[in-house]
Amino acid sequence: MKIIVDAMGGDHAPQAIVQGALEAHKTHSVEILLVGRAAEVLRAVEACGERTLPAGVEIRDAAEVVEIMDNPATAFKVKKDSSLTVGMNLLKEGAGDAFVSAGSTGALLAGATLLVKRIHGIRRAAMGPVIPTAGGRMLLCDCGANAECTPEYLLQFAYLGSYYAQRVLRMERPRVALLNIGSEEAKGDTLRHEAYELLRSAGEAGRIHFIGNLEAGDAMMGGADVLVADGFTGNVMLKSLEGTAKFLLGELKKTMLSSTKNKMAAAMLKGDLANMKRLLDPSEIGGTAFLGISKPVIKAHGSSNARAISNAILRAKEYVESGLIADIERDIDLMKVERKQEKM
Amino acid sequence: MKIIVDAMGGDHAPQAIVQGALEAHKTHSVEILLVGRAAEVLRAVEACGERTLPAGVEIRDAAEVVEIMDNPATAFKVKKDSSLTVGMNLLKEGAGDAFVSAGSTGALLAGATLLVKRIHGIRRAAMGPVIPTAGGRMLLCDCGANAECTPEYLLQFAYLGSYYAQRVLRMERPRVALLNIGSEEAKGDTLRHEAYELLRSAGEAGRIHFIGNLEAGDAMMGGADVLVADGFTGNVMLKSLEGTAKFLLGELKKTMLSSTKNKMAAAMLKGDLANMKRLLDPSEIGGTAFLGISKPVIKAHGSSNARAISNAILRAKEYVESGLIADIERDIDLMKVERKQEKM
Repeated sequence: MKIIVDAMGGDHAPQAIVQGALEAHKTHSVEILLVGRAAEVLRAVEACGERTLPAGVEIRDAAEVVEIMDNPATAFKVKKDSSLTVGMNLLKEGAGDAFVSAGSTGALLAGATLLVKRIHGIRRAAMGPVIPTAGGRMLLCDCGANAECTPEYLLQFAYLGSYYAQRVLRMERPRVALLNIGSEEAKGDTLRHEAYELLRSAGEAGRIHFIGNLEAGDAMMGGADVLVADGFTGNVMLKSLEGTAKFLLGELKKTMLSSTKNKMAAAMLKGDLANMKRLLDPSEIGGTAFLGISKPVIKAHGSSNARAISNAILRAKEYVESGLIADIERDIDLMKVERKQEKM
Repeated sequence: MKIIVDAMGGDHAPQAIVQGALEAHKTHSVEILLVGRAAEVLRAVEACGERTLPAGVEIRDAAEVVEIMDNPATAFKVKKDSSLTVGMNLLKEGAGDAFVSAGSTGALLAGATLLVKRIHGIRRAAMGPVIPTAGGRMLLCDCGANAECTPEYLLQFAYLGSYYAQRVLRMERPRVALLNIGSEEAKGDTLRHEAYELLRSAGEAGRIHFIGNLEAGDAMMGGADVLVADGFTGNVMLKSLEGTAKFLLGELKKTMLSSTKNKMAAAMLKGDLANMKRLLDPSEIGGTAFLGISKPVIKAHGSSNARAISNAILRAKEYVESGLIADIERDIDLMKVERKQEKM
């Protein structure tokens, strides 16, 4: 298996990306195709202590880099020789099995949708990050790719999330819930009411394990394995939980440093607190899948370190091995809503 | 000043409500009108160590209680002799200056809207809880009263929140932001785009201090004083932050109890950790205002203890003293959107 890696995307590119890719190559037995400015990438390889490229690691030159100020919707088209565009085209042509990038989410999504394309019949690609909860972990889908959604999109997010949870996260019968402002059937707005009906039907037909509406707080306590949301609400939930965690860990740190006695106590707790914080560390998961794209594309966090990149490559490997995309293609007819049914 | 208190609403009614009301009577120099089953209320007063009703505390008998299984939309009408309905009518008639209840949010909102009524020109009442952030505190408005909103509602929530922050929370020039999935002007859905225009105009006219779009995470780090949201998204954000705090404090507790060494460290930190947890304790704030109602109605948390009720009564007192409602009535024309402008 060969993973294509955008060596120039992310805050710590190319060094952290190259280092992570070399680690993944050793640890997870995958071939690596690094895409980016060849001279810089090679220097980064050397800075990792390698005199030459290890067997199974290649470099493909790409002169341009998608920057933060580029328009995400058009960057892949305007910068045809960027690591992002060259990498996407390599994936499309079959030069590798998956693409991993820590570059701009918007540019990556636009490139994936318009170059690699969606699975035939899937209306919108969705982002499905795995987030930690009191119950273990949960896939939140969509969480930002689609600000405006129809009930059919939400039905498809439910399928995409459920299939991913089952095949990649290895959950046996993932509990799928609809993010809502109460658990009763009548809660929420028109979009939720119509999506609820579609999800209930899919659940009754035994295609997904739909458990109903769920509030965000109950989801954080472990109430579901897959939480279905429109991209706007999902993104607010994700940012809210990240912000709250940052705020609380900041308060905890202030408390720990506020007196000599507290500093001593903090020293006693150190290793265990670090374990707790690791729960929330995006490097541990490494990457988020763009669900619904016809080949595996994994977005790593912009601030990814080498460990995060290595983990993102492992996620890509698991994704390829899972056969997820073939399963979605096989069942795509179940995920469509007849136009007459679609009310929005 | 006289505060009407629903003695029968909430998980710990009537005992905790009565105790909190008696405490507020002593501490905050307000008269209290307790509404509920007179015999039960009197027994609760006696259980607080009072042989008779203190001067400045009255009881008004109401035989019924709104229960969790009652339909929130109709409970106030069906149970005409409930503490909720009797209390609302007393407020309407001017028998007291504000109404405090720890009962069902939905029933309270329906009662406030249909009995006490909205301020003339205000399209929808909103819930405006004050939430802790790394920057101090922030008003989140709306957070659940209105699942579907028009741009005009959001404009009105911004005014209601800004006026409340200034007059009740005593913030000099509250920073008002629109909850969105990015800070750029073009982010979000149609509702956000149209609301952004209305908020920008109000900001340019110097009526509110609009600072633009804000992500939920940046808001938690102190990026705004008033965060404007439709009720669906605001509720998801509120529940998400409550859930995340619960999850993290649970993990912290697990860590603290995981070994003898950690238990010793926890004992050393005890008082300071309690202070940190207090940051997140809803009892400290006590109550959430229903903004846009023509008289002050304060919703206390369902699980309110005596301290929470006492604090909710203090919030009611501050609300009455602020002159907020008169100021909104005076400026109501600024808060309206001409029908031709209103696109939704």
